[in-house]
Amino acid sequence: MKVNIKNNETAVFAIGGLGEIGKNTYGVQFQDEILIIDAGIKFPEDDLLGIDYVIPDYSYIVQNISKVRGLIITHGHEDHIGGIPFLLKQANIPIYAGPLSLALIRNKLDEHGLLRDAKLYEINEDSIIRFRKTSISFFRTTHSIPNPLGVVIKTPPGNIVCTGDFKFDFTPVGEPADIHKMAKIGEEGVLCLLSDSTNAEVPTFTKSEKVIGKSILNIFEKIDGRIIFASFASNVFRLQQAAEAAVLTGRKIAVFGRSMENAIANGIELGYIRVPAGTFVEPSAINSLPSNEVMILCTGSQGEPMAALSRIANGTHRQISINPGDTVIFSSSPIPGNTVSVNHLINLLSEAGAAVIHGKINNIHTSGHGGQEEQKLMLRLMKPKFFMPVHGEYRMQKIHADLAIDVGVPKENCFIMDNGDVLALTKDSARLAGHFNAGDVYVDGSGVGDIGNIVLRDRHALSEDGLVLCVATVDIASKQVLAGPDILSRGFVYMRESTEMIQKGQRVLFAALREAMNDENANELKLREAMTNAIKPYLFELTEREPMIISMILTPDSNK
Amino acid sequence: MKVNIKNNETAVFAIGGLGEIGKNTYGVQFQDEILIIDAGIKFPEDDLLGIDYVIPDYSYIVQNISKVRGLIITHGHEDHIGGIPFLLKQANIPIYAGPLSLALIRNKLDEHGLLRDAKLYEINEDSIIRFRKTSISFFRTTHSIPNPLGVVIKTPPGNIVCTGDFKFDFTPVGEPADIHKMAKIGEEGVLCLLSDSTNAEVPTFTKSEKVIGKSILNIFEKIDGRIIFASFASNVFRLQQAAEAAVLTGRKIAVFGRSMENAIANGIELGYIRVPAGTFVEPSAINSLPSNEVMILCTGSQGEPMAALSRIANGTHRQISINPGDTVIFSSSPIPGNTVSVNHLINLLSEAGAAVIHGKINNIHTSGHGGQEEQKLMLRLMKPKFFMPVHGEYRMQKIHADLAIDVGVPKENCFIMDNGDVLALTKDSARLAGHFNAGDVYVDGSGVGDIGNIVLRDRHALSEDGLVLCVATVDIASKQVLAGPDILSRGFVYMRESTEMIQKGQRVLFAALREAMNDENANELKLREAMTNAIKPYLFELTEREPMIISMILTPDSNK
Repeated sequence: MKVNIKNNETAVFAIGGLGEIGKNTYGVQFQDEILIIDAGIKFPEDDLLGIDYVIPDYSYIVQNISKVRGLIITHGHEDHIGGIPFLLKQANIPIYAGPLSLALIRNKLDEHGLLRDAKLYEINEDSIIRFRKTSISFFRTTHSIPNPLGVVIKTPPGNIVCTGDFKFDFTPVGEPADIHKMAKIGEEGVLCLLSDSTNAEVPTFTKSEKVIGKSILNIFEKIDGRIIFASFASNVFRLQQAAEAAVLTGRKIAVFGRSMENAIANGIELGYIRVPAGTFVEPSAINSLPSNEVMILCTGSQGEPMAALSRIANGTHRQISINPGDTVIFSSSPIPGNTVSVNHLINLLSEAGAAVIHGKINNIHTSGHGGQEEQKLMLRLMKPKFFMPVHGEYRMQKIHADLAIDVGVPKENCFIMDNGDVLALTKDSARLAGHFNAGDVYVDGSGVGDIGNIVLRDRHALSEDGLVLCVATVDIASKQVLAGPDILSRGFVYMRESTEMIQKGQRVLFAALREAMNDENANELKLREAMTNAIKPYLFELTEREPMIISMILTPDSNK
Repeated sequence: MKVNIKNNETAVFAIGGLGEIGKNTYGVQFQDEILIIDAGIKFPEDDLLGIDYVIPDYSYIVQNISKVRGLIITHGHEDHIGGIPFLLKQANIPIYAGPLSLALIRNKLDEHGLLRDAKLYEINEDSIIRFRKTSISFFRTTHSIPNPLGVVIKTPPGNIVCTGDFKFDFTPVGEPADIHKMAKIGEEGVLCLLSDSTNAEVPTFTKSEKVIGKSILNIFEKIDGRIIFASFASNVFRLQQAAEAAVLTGRKIAVFGRSMENAIANGIELGYIRVPAGTFVEPSAINSLPSNEVMILCTGSQGEPMAALSRIANGTHRQISINPGDTVIFSSSPIPGNTVSVNHLINLLSEAGAAVIHGKINNIHTSGHGGQEEQKLMLRLMKPKFFMPVHGEYRMQKIHADLAIDVGVPKENCFIMDNGDVLALTKDSARLAGHFNAGDVYVDGSGVGDIGNIVLRDRHALSEDGLVLCVATVDIASKQVLAGPDILSRGFVYMRESTEMIQKGQRVLFAALREAMNDENANELKLREAMTNAIKPYLFELTEREPMIISMILTPDSNK
């Protein structure tokens, strides 16, 4: 379907972020000015075997590159900035971001060798970016990373507001959300609101970060041994609260894990992490300190196998292992796909003799996203004419739309859209103005987009029952089997204990080949099929498994 | 380590069920009398690629078959009866079980062709089974399946109690737990208690099934369209409560899914399901009924892709699809490994236009296992001298042991053990008396135990980056490549779009073969290695992927 935006319309769309958690990439377009908000990646679910990341299909940006004025970043989480290197390789557009986001983006671009040519501009909540027909301003929100920004895009038909990720934390560690500015934005009039749907299923008001800080201190005060504190590296305020609790209970802090080291370095430089000099010590120093003067800050709270905490738990960390008397605190909650690995990790730590504190009941974690009451507060403040729930799977978008209807947005003004759908707005109307391709693009190793469904289907098949390989060299003209048939397998059965099955299988193949060669139309393809068709039922009969069968025929003349 | 049980000792051990949720199989042994309690399977976690079930290593039973007096079943869940067919194929021991468990076991044995020779004995809570030196009696508990039994094994050194799965539901749908009998058992004296640790991390008292029933009725009363009610087929009381709510709100019930059909049939036959005649209708009848007179009862509340609900949601069910206005109720909670697929299913149903009710906040599900207060009540009632937390992962066993210490069991009398560890008890002492092999055995297709770590490692490797196959026919004596080298891949890259990479790769292989053949000690193995060593870095350079490489050399004389 073609996209058809009229000259008096502002178009709003998502390149990623609708019907999913991850790869947030939204767009606002008026005539020849396109603004992109965020460029995230999505981490693959288990069925995307071997895939490293999922990014959006950036075709719409690439095809309209002459119109794209810039990429605006709301905050520095991976699902908002992780796609930037992949996008920049296709379209080197200017990037506008706050100081912490910019530091994280710089690290990322440097790793990809893209830093030199990138066009980076630092902004803050008071910045105004003016283009010819549109302009951008910001408002301060609260989230699980310092200084998240909401975005207001002024366009002739009206203002478009994108909240970014937010909650309303009235007692945050950093600055509170600027509800006065939000109220003014609402009074000036919001044509369309794009609001974070992550916690639309949560009826409660998300707990304040300060509550967690108090609870961390309470917990620390009762612990005599070493404390190992695991959290998201990006949650700089949480790290600051843990650091404060360490200082108040007379502990030095050693930092483990590269992303945690970077987070602390960035946090200190930007003033988010403030502790007395000498609080942070080298990892090697902890062994000479009494246990009750040690706190270890580390990555791996999601059970990631290569992160510091997993390596500490399974005894493969170079510098530290669990001692009885240690207390491990998970200041995090597992995302749905990680529950099983986090549970494994807790078992390992527990078996090694550590006390483990985890779970929401201990008040040691809170979400960065607002629940239903906060989503309604945002809707009340912004009073949008049109509403598009973003940043969520379908069921969250649906509930969020129902909340908007509850607070007075007419049902026909709420749009639950898909990635690539284009909503075209005038000051008093809205219509679907087409659709562009915005599917998933898989990143695997250095390959971007070269893995499709066929390759994934093969990986699935291989992972279930392995493969069996049948090879023979054949001279079709003289109807002779010159070499083989040989059978090899991987991931199917343990070959050394299956000699008999293999030898009989070779006889099955040989018979099939002989019969197929007697056909006067015999060719390579037919001989391959004959081998596959013979070995498949033979193996199923013996094992009730269906390995992938690959049959190869080599002919003496196939030499290159 | 050898097992060494003295003549005056009663040994207690687990063949499965310790350090894990699943494959519960416990043993009590006095001299030449061994009693087994339960024989469950475990469902494999995601990393066990292609594995259907995990069962225990039954060697200890097989080696001591002459001493084994019987298998006692506490209740009919898969993690307590699923292993029976596999055990019976190795050791056809007599089975003692209650009526519903026995019905489920009969179905299972029939499928495996084992029913004719099985020795099945029906018991109830008042049964006493007497052997020469030991005897068995029972007590009634409450759980998420009708008539669960706790087991008391009288042995000369003292009584061993195994709770089976339990909660204390004081307002259950069936009969309440027999706390008076439990109190008597406690007063008579319990030498060792084996108690269910599943919910040891849950500080609350588990909600009563009756609360759920009221809440189901409340929800039904507010719904105008069709109701699709998904739950565990084994939770017969839940099905009865849903059926009652359907009757009270004027709905007929159609049943979808084979295990749900069996559960309803069993439930009616055994009197657990009681509704007016004509309540259950054929699936085909629902289309001629008004929506507000229809309830559909179906399997698939865990997001299982082949179950009725998934097929209804994705439009592949033969008889029914989602209509706007339908309400789907998940009367269940996802087990940790299934969260992602349940979320997918909710999105699908929601996109198809159904309202979806799920989650604990709606009071539509309660656990079958007691929380900490119930575990403590069991400990108080039984007043065991020794305590062994069973049915749980390590972290749950640990917390459960701490609870036992809190209610007065001496710390040194609590034993957190592994499968295969043997605890030997006299009336006033306990010691570890050895260990036998009790590892995991994988079932894949018809193969039991033929899949080991090598095969699984290969499946993992194949699932990550696929495979690349290099084949050449070579005459080593004349240093000639007769056919190939050919390259084939699966799950690596999309071959048709990678012609250039493949052709260059063939040249890389050819060069490597030529060089290797110039060595006067050239042989098949060395040529294979030469191909692998050449292609691996070539492919990594181009893709940053490490597919499994299989190199094959065919020689004209390898003909069979």
